[in-house]
Amino acid sequence: MRLRRKPEAKKILSEHPLVFTATEENKSEFQGRWRELFPEPAQPLHVELGTGKGQFLAKTSGLHPEINWIGVERIEEPLLMAVRKGEATKNPNLRYIWADVQWLDEIFAPGEVDRFYLHFSDPWPKKRHTKRRLTYRTFLERYEKLLAPGGDLILKTDSVSLFDFSLEEFQEAGWETIELSRDLHHSPYASANITTEYEDKFVSRGMPIHYVRVRPGRKGSADPGE
Amino acid sequence: MRLRRKPEAKKILSEHPLVFTATEENKSEFQGRWRELFPEPAQPLHVELGTGKGQFLAKTSGLHPEINWIGVERIEEPLLMAVRKGEATKNPNLRYIWADVQWLDEIFAPGEVDRFYLHFSDPWPKKRHTKRRLTYRTFLERYEKLLAPGGDLILKTDSVSLFDFSLEEFQEAGWETIELSRDLHHSPYASANITTEYEDKFVSRGMPIHYVRVRPGRKGSADPGE
Ligand SMILES: C[S@@+](CC[C@H](N)C(=O)[O-])C[C@H]1O[C@@H](n2cnc3c(N)ncnc32)[C@H](O)[C@@H]1O
Ligand SMILES: C[S@@+](CC[C@H](N)C(=O)[O-])C[C@H]1O[C@@H](n2cnc3c(N)ncnc32)[C@H](O)[C@@H]1O
Repeated sequence: MRLRRKPEAKKILSEHPLVFTATEENKSEFQGRWRELFPEPAQPLHVELGTGKGQFLAKTSGLHPEINWIGVERIEEPLLMAVRKGEATKNPNLRYIWADVQWLDEIFAPGEVDRFYLHFSDPWPKKRHTKRRLTYRTFLERYEKLLAPGGDLILKTDSVSLFDFSLEEFQEAGWETIELSRDLHHSPYASANITTEYEDKFVSRGMPIHYVRVRPGRKGSADPGE
Repeated sequence: MRLRRKPEAKKILSEHPLVFTATEENKSEFQGRWRELFPEPAQPLHVELGTGKGQFLAKTSGLHPEINWIGVERIEEPLLMAVRKGEATKNPNLRYIWADVQWLDEIFAPGEVDRFYLHFSDPWPKKRHTKRRLTYRTFLERYEKLLAPGGDLILKTDSVSLFDFSLEEFQEAGWETIELSRDLHHSPYASANITTEYEDKFVSRGMPIHYVRVRPGRKGSADPGE
């Protein structure tokens, strides 16, 4: 994400009514109460991690008004673009958190989230950066804790290495694969799919998009017993 | 499969022009030459293992004339019903083999098959019967040997325990999951799906059908390298 520095981004974000700016001090301010910020607090809460420029959230919040949507992003410039897109929609079911995913379990309460989305997360291909991948086991532990019963996580990526790594981490952590496609845009899931900025770029180059929906818990058993 | 004994089944099958009766002596008779038995020898070869009463083959051979189809079944009575259904279609791209899947790598030649189907294979839930499951590692080794480059295998089952066991065996053997759904009939794959007799029964009871397409080789790497 190379973007021109906008020195005012920080200020705009920290004052913006759709954005919660997480700091070391206040990051738990809405823990367990995120739903109350929305006009329809009873709706499920879906959270995109690493929102980038926010195309997915702007589109999905209009197409799915029955869900409350939150985007988490740590870099100001793309986040500001995401917020601009979001506010232009006037959708009431959309909020943003300016924070690092590292802080996730201090921002949300256990069981508060119904679905996480990881869209084209940085693949961190070097081995010494393994722990930064957003599907590394320590992140999965956070997501598992925060997901409501029956909650799940969706991963979309162009990166075969991140995808295969993630499948192994899910498996190791006892997560269950619900649906999967290594070529989303040539699968029957394509018609309901909502693309991100990165996705549009990769698809226009003809690259296959890898998709998986997984759920913690119910570990697959190698031994169905006697 | 409880069916009334038909003493004549053996005789009819062994003389039937659409059926190859594999015996200890002749089982390799068509090894490497199966395609030549079809009017269109250049077409891909798809093989269903444990065909049962043959609904899938009778339907798919008509819907997919661009493929040559073979069903393998070891029990005479269901196989005879399958053959009856198949010959009634008059589809020229359909054959049957009366054999045990144990013999598969003596019946087919390496690289001869483009796709295997395992449809509602017996789950063999008891631990001491693990090796009989058609996705046990020794069977996967056979399939891998017989599949052409790019060839794959489709598994459909009602059995969660067989499904989870199979995913672990595929993973252990370095096979790659291409697409997967734990509720095929409520997924966008449903519209193109062709059901089997067992499938119709389970679906009418509201049970979810588990589906996966896998491919040998290209092992997922936990370490995309430096
Ligand atoms: C490759 S971009 C993809 C953006 C968007 N999801 C898309 O598909 O177009 C990854 C985004 O995730 C953000 N990100 C990466 N790690 C993060 C973390 N630990 N916490 C918050 N955001 C993160 C990056 O700043 C970047 O905006
Ligand atoms: C549960 S039935 C399913 C039949 C059919 N595929 C369906 O979905 O309706 C399993 C079938 O696989 C056959 N079968 C099981 N093990 C086999 C083996 N090792 N070789 C050949 N056929 C086998 C059984 O005889 C039976 O007809």
